[in-house]
Amino acid sequence: MQVLHMNKGNGDTSYAKNSTVQSKIISVGKPIMKEAVLEMLCNNVIESMGIADLGCSSGPNSLSVISEIMDTVEAANRLLGRRLVSEFRVFLNDLYSNDFNNIFMSLPAFYDRLKEEKGLECESCFILGAPGSFYGRLFPTNSLHFVHSSSSLHWLSQVPAGLESNALKRLNKGKLYISKSSPQSVVDAYLLQFRNDFSLFIKSRSRELVAGGRMVLSFMGRSSTDPTTENSCYQWELLAQAIMSLAREGRIEEEKLDSFNAPYYAPCTEEIKDEIQKEGSFTIDRLEAFEIDWDGGAVTDIHTPHGKLSVGRRVAKAIRAVVESMLQSHFGIQPDVMDDLFIRYGDIVGTHLSKSRTKYINLVMALTKKW
Amino acid sequence: MQVLHMNKGNGDTSYAKNSTVQSKIISVGKPIMKEAVLEMLCNNVIESMGIADLGCSSGPNSLSVISEIMDTVEAANRLLGRRLVSEFRVFLNDLYSNDFNNIFMSLPAFYDRLKEEKGLECESCFILGAPGSFYGRLFPTNSLHFVHSSSSLHWLSQVPAGLESNALKRLNKGKLYISKSSPQSVVDAYLLQFRNDFSLFIKSRSRELVAGGRMVLSFMGRSSTDPTTENSCYQWELLAQAIMSLAREGRIEEEKLDSFNAPYYAPCTEEIKDEIQKEGSFTIDRLEAFEIDWDGGAVTDIHTPHGKLSVGRRVAKAIRAVVESMLQSHFGIQPDVMDDLFIRYGDIVGTHLSKSRTKYINLVMALTKKW
Repeated sequence: MQVLHMNKGNGDTSYAKNSTVQSKIISVGKPIMKEAVLEMLCNNVIESMGIADLGCSSGPNSLSVISEIMDTVEAANRLLGRRLVSEFRVFLNDLYSNDFNNIFMSLPAFYDRLKEEKGLECESCFILGAPGSFYGRLFPTNSLHFVHSSSSLHWLSQVPAGLESNALKRLNKGKLYISKSSPQSVVDAYLLQFRNDFSLFIKSRSRELVAGGRMVLSFMGRSSTDPTTENSCYQWELLAQAIMSLAREGRIEEEKLDSFNAPYYAPCTEEIKDEIQKEGSFTIDRLEAFEIDWDGGAVTDIHTPHGKLSVGRRVAKAIRAVVESMLQSHFGIQPDVMDDLFIRYGDIVGTHLSKSRTKYINLVMALTKKW
Repeated sequence: MQVLHMNKGNGDTSYAKNSTVQSKIISVGKPIMKEAVLEMLCNNVIESMGIADLGCSSGPNSLSVISEIMDTVEAANRLLGRRLVSEFRVFLNDLYSNDFNNIFMSLPAFYDRLKEEKGLECESCFILGAPGSFYGRLFPTNSLHFVHSSSSLHWLSQVPAGLESNALKRLNKGKLYISKSSPQSVVDAYLLQFRNDFSLFIKSRSRELVAGGRMVLSFMGRSSTDPTTENSCYQWELLAQAIMSLAREGRIEEEKLDSFNAPYYAPCTEEIKDEIQKEGSFTIDRLEAFEIDWDGGAVTDIHTPHGKLSVGRRVAKAIRAVVESMLQSHFGIQPDVMDDLFIRYGDIVGTHLSKSRTKYINLVMALTKKW
């Protein structure tokens, strides 16, 4: 939790410059988010609306969700001919090591746009940073009306117990995540960690949301109950191949690969429903699965050599922006080796995608806190 | 407002490493702060206490104030044998360009200490970042109980009107701030800007604080009504001398010095009282002046050559950590010239202090929002 953060700043390998997939995921979930906001406005009297974006990261996506939510409220205002919400309290959450400076520097321009486009004075919208882990309490009791989280809840609070880098036995040699060849103990460890984390998340939000409050969550999952299905883990499989090829040349220690397991889990809908129902304070209004291209769906013909190369590179850059801090911390890789790793990864991904149309499965769900 | 920020990070010239004077100022104001917190707890029922530190900056001082406030609440709990406040909402405010990343990274250790020393669970203390200018609204109406601000309100929202770098006439040539030789128009422009800014500050906080809420403010001022008195402006006078000496060697453009005026004002108590009384929603419980050594009062014999040098250097580093971003933005100085500037400034300051015991005057006031 101290290590995971998206690549900072605005440079070529930054998350801010390489978050097209996450932006695509946000836009796929938009209708569900808008519906949830509208339904909530119809059923609640809200003076001061508390909105939290959990795992906001840093870059163009951080404020776009907030902007969408406020647009929806404004559209409802126009529709009903009166101001439904007179004040917005907006909380941007991510881990302590997130690049909040970068988001905060973009706030003056964001406030200017709110004023120009929506006529909102700065006295009616307060944007705050709420650093900390969403696997635990972040906000006062009954203080929120709407919680959003996109592309974040597939990150576990820690590497599953028994699979940590200092574990006595290497249960998942040569792999970074669940793989076809992983023993059942690895699959079990991942599922247990997900259950513990996700139930703590639901329980914490249940305390923070008012009755009737909504939550729209969107994160990587799978459409099959089989956790080794390609669309839930193949990006890790190929990254392990790229690391292994550098290990064979002695540029990365193979032992380091054996001792690394990603704090990541792509659940199926049943696993999610289980935890929500067990906790008991939310109803599930929607739970839908969407296919997402590994490169976010840019128009490129993968079957030309140039297309293959450029798709592979885009995917590699997108993944690098997300996992580099973790790899750096575990493998201690020199910058030139890191560059090489992601060039190889891009080649492997391009070749794979030219033969097989593996996609991510993104799950989007809308929940209501029971009255 | 886009430019002013304390030097970031943890390096040798960072604010985090050079904020002893500000720490001294906080400790001088501590008894007044504790008294205000205690009085408020005696006169109010507080479930969830909203605390804001305005101009929190980044470094060891950022969280020390919060820690002191919570210690005081805890001492009151023990005294009265019951929990007076069950939840803390803590807002750390500074300008958008402040190094919030640095504060946020220190929060896990801070939460651990709260738990160990005060037995506070993470569900009862929520620390948030509230970026923006305190010359305007930052928080929802009636959401705060205690506002603290130290070493911040002497910074104006802008260079006084008529003294900006693009003004047609250079009214304050060769100076950075009010000086004995400044014309009356310069003094008037500074006072007007202070009046406008400070009254907007008071008005904004008046909306945000609950009735009975307290505010403890501490900032640079002067004990005399004369705004050219040495203890309110001589640090700027000597900095102008150092810049002028580099200008004479052609290493800084003299025109740049003529066109720069610091967005700073050290008011006298009457000027402060005037604005508070005009606004009308606060009573003044205390308003006291303290002398503060330019180097924060380290034990050094200024009358030895070594002592003179080391006091001068400490003062120069403290001032550099605060004004470098502004000077950099206006003068566009190369790093080596910046280094030279503050070496010269240190020499000038050391020589001055060995002959004259000029001190800062720090004003501390405690205010109560009327019922």
